Amino acid sequence: MNDLPRHVDIHEEGPREGFQIEPGPITTERKIALIDALSETGLRRIQIASYVNPKRVPGWADAEAVVEGYHPQDGVRYTALWLNEKGLERAIAQSGRLALRGTISLCTSEPFMRRNQNRDLAENARVQHAQIAIFKAHGIPVEGISIMAVFGCNFAGEISLETVIDTVQQGHDIAAANAITVRSVSLADTMAWATPTSIKRVVGAVRERWPDLRLNLHLHDTRGLGLANAYAGLAMGVASFDASVAGLGGCPFAGHKGAAGNVCTEDLVFMCEEMGIATGIDVEKLIHAAQLAEAIVGHPLPGSVMRGGTLGKYRKH
Amino acid sequence: MNDLPRHVDIHEEGPREGFQIEPGPITTERKIALIDALSETGLRRIQIASYVNPKRVPGWADAEAVVEGYHPQDGVRYTALWLNEKGLERAIAQSGRLALRGTISLCTSEPFMRRNQNRDLAENARVQHAQIAIFKAHGIPVEGISIMAVFGCNFAGEISLETVIDTVQQGHDIAAANAITVRSVSLADTMAWATPTSIKRVVGAVRERWPDLRLNLHLHDTRGLGLANAYAGLAMGVASFDASVAGLGGCPFAGHKGAAGNVCTEDLVFMCEEMGIATGIDVEKLIHAAQLAEAIVGHPLPGSVMRGGTLGKYRKH
Repeated sequence: MNDLPRHVDIHEEGPREGFQIEPGPITTERKIALIDALSETGLRRIQIASYVNPKRVPGWADAEAVVEGYHPQDGVRYTALWLNEKGLERAIAQSGRLALRGTISLCTSEPFMRRNQNRDLAENARVQHAQIAIFKAHGIPVEGISIMAVFGCNFAGEISLETVIDTVQQGHDIAAANAITVRSVSLADTMAWATPTSIKRVVGAVRERWPDLRLNLHLHDTRGLGLANAYAGLAMGVASFDASVAGLGGCPFAGHKGAAGNVCTEDLVFMCEEMGIATGIDVEKLIHAAQLAEAIVGHPLPGSVMRGGTLGKYRKH
Repeated sequence: MNDLPRHVDIHEEGPREGFQIEPGPITTERKIALIDALSETGLRRIQIASYVNPKRVPGWADAEAVVEGYHPQDGVRYTALWLNEKGLERAIAQSGRLALRGTISLCTSEPFMRRNQNRDLAENARVQHAQIAIFKAHGIPVEGISIMAVFGCNFAGEISLETVIDTVQQGHDIAAANAITVRSVSLADTMAWATPTSIKRVVGAVRERWPDLRLNLHLHDTRGLGLANAYAGLAMGVASFDASVAGLGGCPFAGHKGAAGNVCTEDLVFMCEEMGIATGIDVEKLIHAAQLAEAIVGHPLPGSVMRGGTLGKYRKH
């Protein structure tokens, strides 16, 4: 009936996504408390900081202190985000505390790239080559390609399938020029344009052209379709998702105050586990982390399962 | 790639679902204002009142006044809910203001039926026969079967496929004993147990046994899976859904304070229209109605598109 994977990997991005947009101020200690709670849930990859310009993203002015202070658990990869060479240098300075992985970061939309990172697509390609040189110099493996605004853009409108394929190809070209083998592509619905239909269309087209690539979906939930889109991805065999505990987050550059965070981690984990897809994550512990996140930010967050609860207690009747 | 229908019918249940559970008090005039706003959206079926015991559901003590006062639009069917013969008598007394349709109302779960309507399943079957006699005496057409707790129950736990099939068969038996042809079955995920996988399993089994039945899904969103489940239903060709503007609602008998309302109408309409499935509904007008609903209840409601907005304005760039 479908191609649901047996196991999915979930990359928790709640701390990075959330603390970049919450008005705060949130203390370094509280950020660390959330990261440490997430470390106990069975999550194996957690993005814990963003090395961005503190003038543009004051919520991450304490990135160094957070990375210095959290308590790493065995078997968990702690990742960080950067958008330029300066951010990468800051990450490398803390490489003992992080599992650094290089990514070739591209975008389908020129106007979004200008707005998000203040450069055009050609300049961004040059930046990618320069970053790869730095990755290589520091022995940081480059794993894949990451593409923003794959399913539509608030500034460029519809994104054609041809543009998506061309952008994935551009990533392969940049990799090839640097003798890198691309193993994965992350497709981001940065501004929440995707529907289950467009997920199927885009994932199908990318997979047809590059059948061996491992695909990841990064799905924002601004219009409530996050889990429906995740399910469409699962039904296409996608086995890797970014997600955000309690639905923390939003995009500061989307030009849209209603923009929501990534698909909610505990809701996604609940859906997967109820469908028989293993996540390796304890959803009850994740709910505790989600409740902590809500306490830290001081206002309700959009997660559902943290309020609705799981079903185990009813089954034991 | 899938069996998405070209058109779906949406039965708006927000007023009935919402005002039964909101703490209020909400004035009759405000209830009528929401119904009148919904009448302008293109919705063709709106459930506007619940003839229930005012001691148990004080929010609907003014059912008669609401039905008397709203402003009907041509082409819209206004429906009401009742749970027993007394409620049905009240509805019949206002039949000039309502499009009354009979339903054979069943439940998969004995303990939920006791809790919800204070009777066992055998007594409920007798009630259905008695109600059919009343429907016939008043010329009210009986259209189909409606079944609660199809996908799981907070009091009975898992519901087997066999129980679901047996319950649909019981509905057919009650219909046959009264010379009624069953044209539709509504399957309710009353306590939000469904996943896309169980939607596909149950819809598939019911359709295999009764291929000509028109299926409707009534999906609560307590665990955030409402739209994912709706999409799974759409992919199975289901073309009729209950929904609730702004996500108004909840179930007063679910024994669960985190219980949420039906899947949000404007989010469902947005998803369908973006996937090329016609709803006949103006989503912008529906967003206005959702904002009115939020103003009436005086607290945030769970809808996403009412905050995130639609995509048309970005496409026109």
